[in-house]
Formats: sequence, structure tokens, C-alpha cells
Amino acid sequence: MAVIRNEVFSCFVFYAVLLVVKMYTIAIITGQVRLRKKAFANPEDALRHGGLQFHREDPYVERCRRAHINDMENILPFLFIGAIYSLTGPSLTVARIHFLIFFLCRVLHSFAYLFALRAPTRSLAYTFAQIPCVSMAVQVLMAVAAYA
Amino acid sequence: MAVIRNEVFSCFVFYAVLLVVKMYTIAIITGQVRLRKKAFANPEDALRHGGLQFHREDPYVERCRRAHINDMENILPFLFIGAIYSLTGPSLTVARIHFLIFFLCRVLHSFAYLFALRAPTRSLAYTFAQIPCVSMAVQVLMAVAAYA
Amino acid sequence: MAVIRNEVFSCFVFYAVLLVVKMYTIAIITGQVRLRKKAFANPEDALRHGGLQFHREDPYVERCRRAHINDMENILPFLFIGAIYSLTGPSLTVARIHFLIFFLCRVLHSFAYLFALRAPTRSLAYTFAQIPCVSMAVQVLMAVAAYA
Repeated sequence: MAVIRNEVFSCFVFYAVLLVVKMYTIAIITGQVRLRKKAFANPEDALRHGGLQFHREDPYVERCRRAHINDMENILPFLFIGAIYSLTGPSLTVARIHFLIFFLCRVLHSFAYLFALRAPTRSLAYTFAQIPCVSMAVQVLMAVAAYA
Repeated sequence: MAVIRNEVFSCFVFYAVLLVVKMYTIAIITGQVRLRKKAFANPEDALRHGGLQFHREDPYVERCRRAHINDMENILPFLFIGAIYSLTGPSLTVARIHFLIFFLCRVLHSFAYLFALRAPTRSLAYTFAQIPCVSMAVQVLMAVAAYA
Repeated sequence: MAVIRNEVFSCFVFYAVLLVVKMYTIAIITGQVRLRKKAFANPEDALRHGGLQFHREDPYVERCRRAHINDMENILPFLFIGAIYSLTGPSLTVARIHFLIFFLCRVLHSFAYLFALRAPTRSLAYTFAQIPCVSMAVQVLMAVAAYA
């Protein structure tokens, strides 16, 4: 990076941006499933694709939506906590382990959601992804608690 | 800015904060529509505004909700990717084009959603807004790939 | 903090991370309510916990979901606006008041939502939490308007 020359921060950015791209991918998949299943959330979209009868819900579209919303609930806070944590001066090795666990578990979470893998695969992926997040949150809180 | 004196970053912040204000506006519109249509998501709100029969869904409230959730799916990741991209040292002109395309397309997206403009206006606004995001994501990934 | 030695920013980070932990807590509560009420959003989860008849909605689970989504709509933009505002060089006292009002109102909002407190407690908590956000947005916009 031109401005920020910080190895931990750059490592964080790498996995964070990949996860954002993963979220974009789920949005694209949702759109494709809507077209294939002819299930549109808006009447104006249904009208363009055959008629108002396609203004309807579809179970697999709803599954994609849930996967996306769960990503927002977890990946978006990670974009914040991971960035702040990177600035607290952790060792690169320890930080990379945090980011990598979160990254791999969230990719597994998406696969488990979209392919409806047997429970509790998805829940375990969610839970293990939260461990580095809670760890980072605690470390950041300890670093700034004096400023509360 | 007092701390960060970076033209590209300041340019990004300008459009990013305007988009956050735009999201706040959709929340206010949703609340006003709920009051006018008497359609409340919570029984305690319905009770205060005439009775439990108003604890119900309304198609236009749901449309506002979808506009808001789509904003969260797209504008919130932009707040991250745009900030990081600004720190990779792009030219101000190129960066401003990225931010401006995203900003204008997301404003159009909100108009298309709230006024139910004919398809595919809203989808096109979404798609064109994603182009600068993917461009920024690729540039950031190339800048930090060595630190993965 | 090792890298960023900025009192206002550290104060912001303290409250911001606490609010992220608060959001994580709502996710955990939602999961526990799903288990207790046997109301699962996914058939694979229902199958693991007794059968497909538990693939169903529950009013209190939906209430938790709404609390969580409202947090995303408000706390996630705060993570951005608060960070940028901290970098514009405000006085520590004024900044802390902004963060503290937002923090306390959002905690009250969650209590009002989860315990279904009488209206308009929740709406007032939401509205008062937005005041420091709009104040910060205006101050940031004034600081960077020259770079638009």
C-alpha cells in the first residue's frame, strides 16, 4: 500500500476484501436464482419477466437471502473489528491466524447455507468464525479501555 | 481534516457520508409510511396508534424495507472498500470517478425503488454501482496480495 | 493503541466495540430463542431438532431478528461515521458526549425491543441515537466539502 505500510493491516485487508467479494457473489447468485425460478420481490421485475404471477417468494431465494443477511451480521462487523485490531500492534502470525480462521469459516458457512449441508455444519462454521472476532474485540477493548 | 490530510480520502468521505445520510433518509421515510398506512411491525407500536389490527404488513412499507436492506448490502461494503482503496494511492481524478459513479447509481437505485420505476432501471443502477466496487476490490487485492 | 495514539479515536473505539459485542449478543439470544421455541429458519436445522414441523416462524424470534436488523441499520453506519469524525479533530469532551449518547440509546433500544417495552420507548431511543450521528455527519461533511 502507498499510504499504510503495515503488514498486519495489509494481511487483514486481503482477507476482508475477499470476504466482501464473497458477499457480492451471493448477491449475484440470488439474482440468478430469481431469474431461473421466476420469483421476484418486486412487481415491476415480475412484469418484465412474464407477469405479476411471478411476484412471489421461492424457498431457495429465501435461503440465499438468509445467507446474505447472516454475512452482513458477521462480515460487516469483522471489517471494523479486524481493522482496529490490526492497528493495536499484534504479531503478524497471531493476527493472520485470526483472519484466516474467520475467512475459512465464513466461506464454509456460505457453502453450508447454499448447499443446505446437514446441521450443524453451518452453525459450527458460524460459531468458529465468531471465536477470532470475540478474541479481537477483547484485545481491542483492553487496548482502549483507559480512554473510555 | 485535522488528522488525515489526504485528498482522495477526503473526496471518498464526502460521498460516503452523503450515502449514509441517504440511508438514514430511507429509514425516516419507512417510519412515515408506517404511520400513514398504519402498518406496524411491532404490536406495541400498533397499540399506541389505534389497536392491534394495525400490527400488519403493507406492500409499500415492505418496498422501503427492501430498498434499505439493498443499501446495507451495497453501501456498507463501499464504506470499507472505498476507504481502503483511498489509502492505496490512486490518482484523485480516477478515484473521484469511482466514487461519483457509485454515488449517482445508488441515488438512482433508491429513486427507482421508492417510485417503482419500470424494470430494469433499478437493476441497472445496482449493476453499474457495482462496477467501481469491483474495480476498487481488484486494485486493493493487487496492492496487498503479497501480505496474504 | 500501538499505531494510532489518538484519544478521541480510542474513546470511539471503546464504545463502538461494545456495541458490536451487543450485536453479537442479540445473535446469540436469537439462536437460543430458536432452540427453546423450536422455530428454525432452515429445514436442515429443524430436522436435527425434532422434525420438519419445526421449520416455522415464531413471533419472538422475528422480534429478535428485527432488533438485529435495526442494529445493522444504525450501528454499522456509526462504526464508519464515528471513526471519520474522530479523525476530524473534535474536542475529547464533545466527542465523548456524542459516542455516549449513541451508546446508551442503542442499549436502551435493544432492551426496549427484546422486552417489548411500551411505545414510544424504542422509537425515542432510536431517534435520540440518531442525533449524534447526524451531528457527526454534518461536521464531517463540512470538514471535507472542499474535496468533493
